[in-house]
Amino acid sequence: MTVVDDVRSTIQGLRREVCALHEQLTRYRLVVWTAGNVSARVPGQDLLVIKPSGVSYDDLTPENMVVCDLEGRVVEGEHAPSSDTEAQAYVYREMPHVGGVVHTHSTYATAWAARGEAVPCVLTMGADEFGGEIPVGPFAVIGDDSIGRGIVETLRGSRSPAVLMRNHGVFAIGKDARSAVKAAVMCEDVARTVHISRQLGDPVPLAPAQVDALFDRYQNVYGQR
Amino acid sequence: MTVVDDVRSTIQGLRREVCALHEQLTRYRLVVWTAGNVSARVPGQDLLVIKPSGVSYDDLTPENMVVCDLEGRVVEGEHAPSSDTEAQAYVYREMPHVGGVVHTHSTYATAWAARGEAVPCVLTMGADEFGGEIPVGPFAVIGDDSIGRGIVETLRGSRSPAVLMRNHGVFAIGKDARSAVKAAVMCEDVARTVHISRQLGDPVPLAPAQVDALFDRYQNVYGQR
Amino acid sequence: MTVVDDVRSTIQGLRREVCALHEQLTRYRLVVWTAGNVSARVPGQDLLVIKPSGVSYDDLTPENMVVCDLEGRVVEGEHAPSSDTEAQAYVYREMPHVGGVVHTHSTYATAWAARGEAVPCVLTMGADEFGGEIPVGPFAVIGDDSIGRGIVETLRGSRSPAVLMRNHGVFAIGKDARSAVKAAVMCEDVARTVHISRQLGDPVPLAPAQVDALFDRYQNVYGQR
Amino acid sequence: MTVVDDVRSTIQGLRREVCALHEQLTRYRLVVWTAGNVSARVPGQDLLVIKPSGVSYDDLTPENMVVCDLEGRVVEGEHAPSSDTEAQAYVYREMPHVGGVVHTHSTYATAWAARGEAVPCVLTMGADEFGGEIPVGPFAVIGDDSIGRGIVETLRGSRSPAVLMRNHGVFAIGKDARSAVKAAVMCEDVARTVHISRQLGDPVPLAPAQVDALFDRYQNVYGQR
Repeated sequence: MTVVDDVRSTIQGLRREVCALHEQLTRYRLVVWTAGNVSARVPGQDLLVIKPSGVSYDDLTPENMVVCDLEGRVVEGEHAPSSDTEAQAYVYREMPHVGGVVHTHSTYATAWAARGEAVPCVLTMGADEFGGEIPVGPFAVIGDDSIGRGIVETLRGSRSPAVLMRNHGVFAIGKDARSAVKAAVMCEDVARTVHISRQLGDPVPLAPAQVDALFDRYQNVYGQR
Repeated sequence: MTVVDDVRSTIQGLRREVCALHEQLTRYRLVVWTAGNVSARVPGQDLLVIKPSGVSYDDLTPENMVVCDLEGRVVEGEHAPSSDTEAQAYVYREMPHVGGVVHTHSTYATAWAARGEAVPCVLTMGADEFGGEIPVGPFAVIGDDSIGRGIVETLRGSRSPAVLMRNHGVFAIGKDARSAVKAAVMCEDVARTVHISRQLGDPVPLAPAQVDALFDRYQNVYGQR
Repeated sequence: MTVVDDVRSTIQGLRREVCALHEQLTRYRLVVWTAGNVSARVPGQDLLVIKPSGVSYDDLTPENMVVCDLEGRVVEGEHAPSSDTEAQAYVYREMPHVGGVVHTHSTYATAWAARGEAVPCVLTMGADEFGGEIPVGPFAVIGDDSIGRGIVETLRGSRSPAVLMRNHGVFAIGKDARSAVKAAVMCEDVARTVHISRQLGDPVPLAPAQVDALFDRYQNVYGQR
Repeated sequence: MTVVDDVRSTIQGLRREVCALHEQLTRYRLVVWTAGNVSARVPGQDLLVIKPSGVSYDDLTPENMVVCDLEGRVVEGEHAPSSDTEAQAYVYREMPHVGGVVHTHSTYATAWAARGEAVPCVLTMGADEFGGEIPVGPFAVIGDDSIGRGIVETLRGSRSPAVLMRNHGVFAIGKDARSAVKAAVMCEDVARTVHISRQLGDPVPLAPAQVDALFDRYQNVYGQR
């Protein structure tokens, strides 16, 4: 198998994985209609695999995923890529440890984003996954680097793998696409629980040392080795 | 194939499409029991295809869809048409660019409608799809032209493809039935997110110029060409 | 076919219908675990068919439905009947036009019931189905006629086919079991929408004459003849 | 069949049962991603069967369940056990009548837990299943006996089979795993309904004697004998 074949095979696998991960977005009701997407970096290549724009989740196949370079230009695929491709490409360019990006308008997270308010860290699940609050990024207009820049600048100052872009929605990152989807799922769950808790009073704060201890353990001990 | 055969074949296709689109209403939980419906204009004919009245979504078939003229009289079909047929026929008569109409009582949108309050445009998704607030129409009694007139008068003064009829529910329009269903789905999603955001404070407003820029881009660039 | 065979065949049909209608309770998330049930009167007989007590919805079959007399005593079946059988039998004894009864603890309706507050009629859907507010019945302890009496006394003073029993849940009636299930579904939908509407302000009231007009039309014109 | 074969067969049965019960957690949306688990005591043995850590609910099989001793050490299985194993093992050690334990972060229950507030008993369903309020346990850090101790100390002073661990989530117990799952389902349902009721006012209190009567009847009369 040549190097070229190897890259081809990796891209084939990522097409399948990225396609299949969209089922998690619909299962957890993070998206309606076509309003959300998953992408993955092609490891070792300046390429990403992403959902086609405006195509229904029912109609996604590995074949209609789109391969783009890290400027967001289509390299392989018959469809136009997600309109979030430029923002996600910017994240891959600037954050080399990121292997997957997810975008949703999930209800509770977006409700915090509309107020420009971070989700405070008052749950062990929030400490585990986000290591603190889920931060808010700036309002940014689609069509240039503004969204990508807003995501990167906000996440660089945080342990959180998710950012609430103001008046817009969620961008989540991870070492691979699956981790980014997990962060998007947890972001909505934490945003919802904290919202509901606050409706009838004030949640008890967690001390920073407690948050640190939970975050460290979850990142290093949880799950299968 | 004669002209008559051609119309017959178009109607067959619309029966299948209108029937199938009701699955989107149940999937997104916009309707309960039989309380919501989809219709489509038969292009070039003064005819529409609509759900039968009071028939369960599980029992819909292309064959039991009803064909009516634009006065709401049954032209083809063994069932009585939706009790919203007159309102929808009025919309097709008065708005020639409309190819599909959807009616729901979806929860959050109807909650705004019960207060007679428009959904403010504080989300990029709201700007994209509705180009501003989702407007409120008058309270109108079923059984004459009042509902149709209320829909048309409200939507003529707006870029929104959806209107919240006071104390009643949602009517959404589109260039075809699928676009109208999309507008109904997005209407509930935006109504829900803005409602939840407002429960804990005030969403940050979007400037009119930002709304315009988002609306223009979404209408002209998003999706597949 | 003898008269006895005829009754046997009617009961067989009702076992199937009552069993199948429980799927509507789970589909619309009106019940969790085993907490809700449907019953039907056997027309012309002092008998009813009801869900067995404490059996999971997944395990319901026509065969494990229980036939009781109108004192709630088991006539046919190997299982203990629903613990709500006495209440429902009381309703059938006192209200001869009732052919079906449903009991749920559906979330929003029960939330109103916990405050002892009727759901006001501020939606066309509420006027259509309930002809006014959804009334509250007394707090009543299970185990004697109290619940049945509370249901009957409350519903006799109302056009509503559903009553919110205080601190408890919903009882809905209909000319047959399917109509009672419909009333239970609509009750939760209206209770939810009005609740959400009231969270951010006051719904616009409907005038009594408007409610009457909607109720009359819906009861007499809607659906298939 | 020898004693050893008998234990082996019991464990096989519990692997199947514990695996299958996780479907109830996802069906009732008590968990997202991998954040919740079920365990069962092996009767007569100092052993428990529990979910593997960080494995998706879609990928659970009887074979990948993990058997641990009551110190939380793996006895049989190729996966690391749930990170809640120590807490649950502590419960089995200290409460010999407990045959099943469930942990979730279900939304409404966890919202009460984040405020450190017990769910008051204002519903017949709450009286039936919990015999009073659903109590709050202390904030406890994972990794030693703190969580287990907090659960046991809180539940010993209560008739409730569920405890809201502060800023964390729900632990529910039962005579077997199925009963513990039922308690977790009912806990979320009661927490949600009481939350929603309180959003628009104060639920009517239930008198202690009423709560006692409901609890006694439900524990002793409800369901099949």
